[in-house]
Amino acid sequence: MKILVVGANGKIGRHIVRHLAEEENVTVKAMLRKQEQIEQFKHLDVETVIADLEAEDGVFKASQDVDTIIFTAGSGGHTGADKTMLVDLDGAFKTIEAAEKHNIKRFIMISALHSDTPKNWKEGMEHYYTAKKRADERLRHSHLNYTILRPGWLTNDEPTGKIEARLNLGKDGSITRQDVAMTVVKTLHLEETFYKTIEIINGDIPIDKALTNIN
Amino acid sequence: MKILVVGANGKIGRHIVRHLAEEENVTVKAMLRKQEQIEQFKHLDVETVIADLEAEDGVFKASQDVDTIIFTAGSGGHTGADKTMLVDLDGAFKTIEAAEKHNIKRFIMISALHSDTPKNWKEGMEHYYTAKKRADERLRHSHLNYTILRPGWLTNDEPTGKIEARLNLGKDGSITRQDVAMTVVKTLHLEETFYKTIEIINGDIPIDKALTNIN
Repeated sequence: MKILVVGANGKIGRHIVRHLAEEENVTVKAMLRKQEQIEQFKHLDVETVIADLEAEDGVFKASQDVDTIIFTAGSGGHTGADKTMLVDLDGAFKTIEAAEKHNIKRFIMISALHSDTPKNWKEGMEHYYTAKKRADERLRHSHLNYTILRPGWLTNDEPTGKIEARLNLGKDGSITRQDVAMTVVKTLHLEETFYKTIEIINGDIPIDKALTNIN
Repeated sequence: MKILVVGANGKIGRHIVRHLAEEENVTVKAMLRKQEQIEQFKHLDVETVIADLEAEDGVFKASQDVDTIIFTAGSGGHTGADKTMLVDLDGAFKTIEAAEKHNIKRFIMISALHSDTPKNWKEGMEHYYTAKKRADERLRHSHLNYTILRPGWLTNDEPTGKIEARLNLGKDGSITRQDVAMTVVKTLHLEETFYKTIEIINGDIPIDKALTNIN
């Protein structure tokens, strides 16, 4: 299994790469935007590739030798809504298109809780949720074996290894970025998560168990 | 034929409504965002409906009694890229979805020249072209009888009634908003324009003739 992590230098991305590097029978390819970002991945057993998600064929070329893609790229809060359009929306669309063209076997999307329920959107972030909503929809309309993970409010707290995972949580909640990353890794092979959109927050149930009992 | 004009109060929209109001066997329904916008349409023989394209079901409700939709809404240059996401992209997606659900017979999209060729995008407007590109793509992937019109640089000059229309112009150019509006009206019934994406700028050929000789 060879996995491209799109957004590998992001706050969740770095945790994902680190966890995947410890997995057996997995080759990790970290997609990075800048040369100087390679340094921090050098101590890990991972490949790196420099590619610009905003370029026309950046992710297409970067993904041609992998069978799985994890999309965790985002323009973040420090840039404008123009970058939300170019990265969170269009970057996701391009990555899904690349996956379709390369017949990628598995696609994990890191989305956001509430993306499909505008009434729950935080004021001033409507454009962000819209980007996530439309990217997720594009993925669901593809023929890819996808899992869309929708974490609640993200924190940098220590991981607990325990979550609550539902197709429809019906409530708010937070989750540590490290727990999101571990959930991504567990999700990769778990058939119970195939073709599902799953909402996750920290909870009382070990990640494995929570994911095998989704409803 | 009953036509909903989404973005009827826009610079092109107002010309479209005015021209359509003069057509026979056509009922025009101008979709407006604000009550105070109704005033300027009162002297015309048109219906009006107040609906918010950013609301979840605004355009869905507004379009339930029409058989044709013209989408000419845009957030314009005076608002931020967040509104480009919510209006130009998501508003278009919602309108296409509404058309699908209502089995709308005909859909005309006002797009922009160069939307599919990033190398020609004006700097600082990448997010705008991206919104147009993805909205057009969504429409082409629908089962609607669409025509996508991609005008060049828009001016407020007097109309000439003459254009150059090609699937691929291969050059830049400008066009008056009134000529765009007249082209839209001519396009409505013209089979030669069905399921096509057409680039238009002002030229030497009468609109009718230019549209019947697309290649």
